[in-house]
Amino acid sequence: MEQKKQTIAVIGGTGALGSGLARRWAAAGYPVVLGSRKAEKAVQAAEEMNAGGFPHAVRGMANGEAAGAGDIVVLTVPFAHHEGILAEIREAVQGKIVVDATAPLVPPKVGRVQLPESDSAACMAQEALGENVRVVSAFQNVSAHKLDGHEPVNCDVLVCGDKKEARQVVVDLIAPLGLRGVHAGPLANSTAAEALTSVLITINRLYKTDGAGIRITGNLENAPVGSPQAADARP
Amino acid sequence: MEQKKQTIAVIGGTGALGSGLARRWAAAGYPVVLGSRKAEKAVQAAEEMNAGGFPHAVRGMANGEAAGAGDIVVLTVPFAHHEGILAEIREAVQGKIVVDATAPLVPPKVGRVQLPESDSAACMAQEALGENVRVVSAFQNVSAHKLDGHEPVNCDVLVCGDKKEARQVVVDLIAPLGLRGVHAGPLANSTAAEALTSVLITINRLYKTDGAGIRITGNLENAPVGSPQAADARP
Repeated sequence: MEQKKQTIAVIGGTGALGSGLARRWAAAGYPVVLGSRKAEKAVQAAEEMNAGGFPHAVRGMANGEAAGAGDIVVLTVPFAHHEGILAEIREAVQGKIVVDATAPLVPPKVGRVQLPESDSAACMAQEALGENVRVVSAFQNVSAHKLDGHEPVNCDVLVCGDKKEARQVVVDLIAPLGLRGVHAGPLANSTAAEALTSVLITINRLYKTDGAGIRITGNLENAPVGSPQAADARP
Repeated sequence: MEQKKQTIAVIGGTGALGSGLARRWAAAGYPVVLGSRKAEKAVQAAEEMNAGGFPHAVRGMANGEAAGAGDIVVLTVPFAHHEGILAEIREAVQGKIVVDATAPLVPPKVGRVQLPESDSAACMAQEALGENVRVVSAFQNVSAHKLDGHEPVNCDVLVCGDKKEARQVVVDLIAPLGLRGVHAGPLANSTAAEALTSVLITINRLYKTDGAGIRITGNLENAPVGSPQAADARP
């Protein structure tokens, strides 16, 4: 018996990364809600996306409402809007898992690591949302355009969070996207993934490609308890 | 006509990472000097290493002397000794390239990212050594034991530095080790590689492996001018 799939709200879901994730989750059968600063924009993006014909139609709403409608809330917003949007969704996400994909890029030198004072956007989110929210960070190193189409993506997703169970929920949500989620430790370790985003932007520029990503090498078959492999084995 | 190979001094060269790098460079025909806090220890390590029968015998010296004897100076020391050793070699490395492999690990939680105030050990080295030294960071993500034997290592090396020519010298020194060096931008970007070390330590623990490393995916064939490919084409 398949478990009922949780509803995923993608805040900033009309952007390139957000819409790529939303489309892949919808195609995998997840109920998806797109959030945008303007509800109309989200509604329109959802309508366009639904031309794909998903098991559950994607819905569009203003960010605050979308955060309320989601069981799991994914943040894909520019760093410049991060703080404001955290304040906007704070009430609606209490008790939930919030997946923060924010890389703290500082224009114009987005290819240069320039960390915020706390060293991590995800740690800022945890601070802003409070201890009843389980913040997990992920997706900082996935180029949006790689999510076009349906093929598996040659990139791993570092998943950081202080609660292992919440991290596992996110790792399990990554496999249906055609990516591999890797447990990468506490939320403080998000710094590595956030900093790596600028490195990948630099590599894209220096090597004249737009496809740089990362893979974790080594034998990761002995996955942690509650891993995707274990989840797959459920009746 | 082959260019004369530069002498590489490995400071902290009796440690696991340092001796692994030294042995592979010696096997590839580079003159190598091992530095240690005690000269006798370096001499003994060099003698043991020379049982390998290299084109140039490895020499052992105290760190300060070794730094003077190298054309290129590689630092493979624990973060706790980093500051002291920088002061010790400062005079001897003026005008040279210093390759800093230091990850700012803070025991006992070495699997947790805990960056120094400046966000980067390599930036601390640049500050300590002064502007006449070209600091390049590399090797933070290579497990020492992977350098055992002679096989290519399934791990990329992020190479950061503010001077592109100096970075290129280091990228060119990495290929003979059986690793791939990747230009990763300015020295500030070393933060990503330094933070990633704790992530890889965590992954090793969680996935019960000791071999986690990273690969940069994507098409890196359009390598920057002066790349290894270009270097290989020299007569």
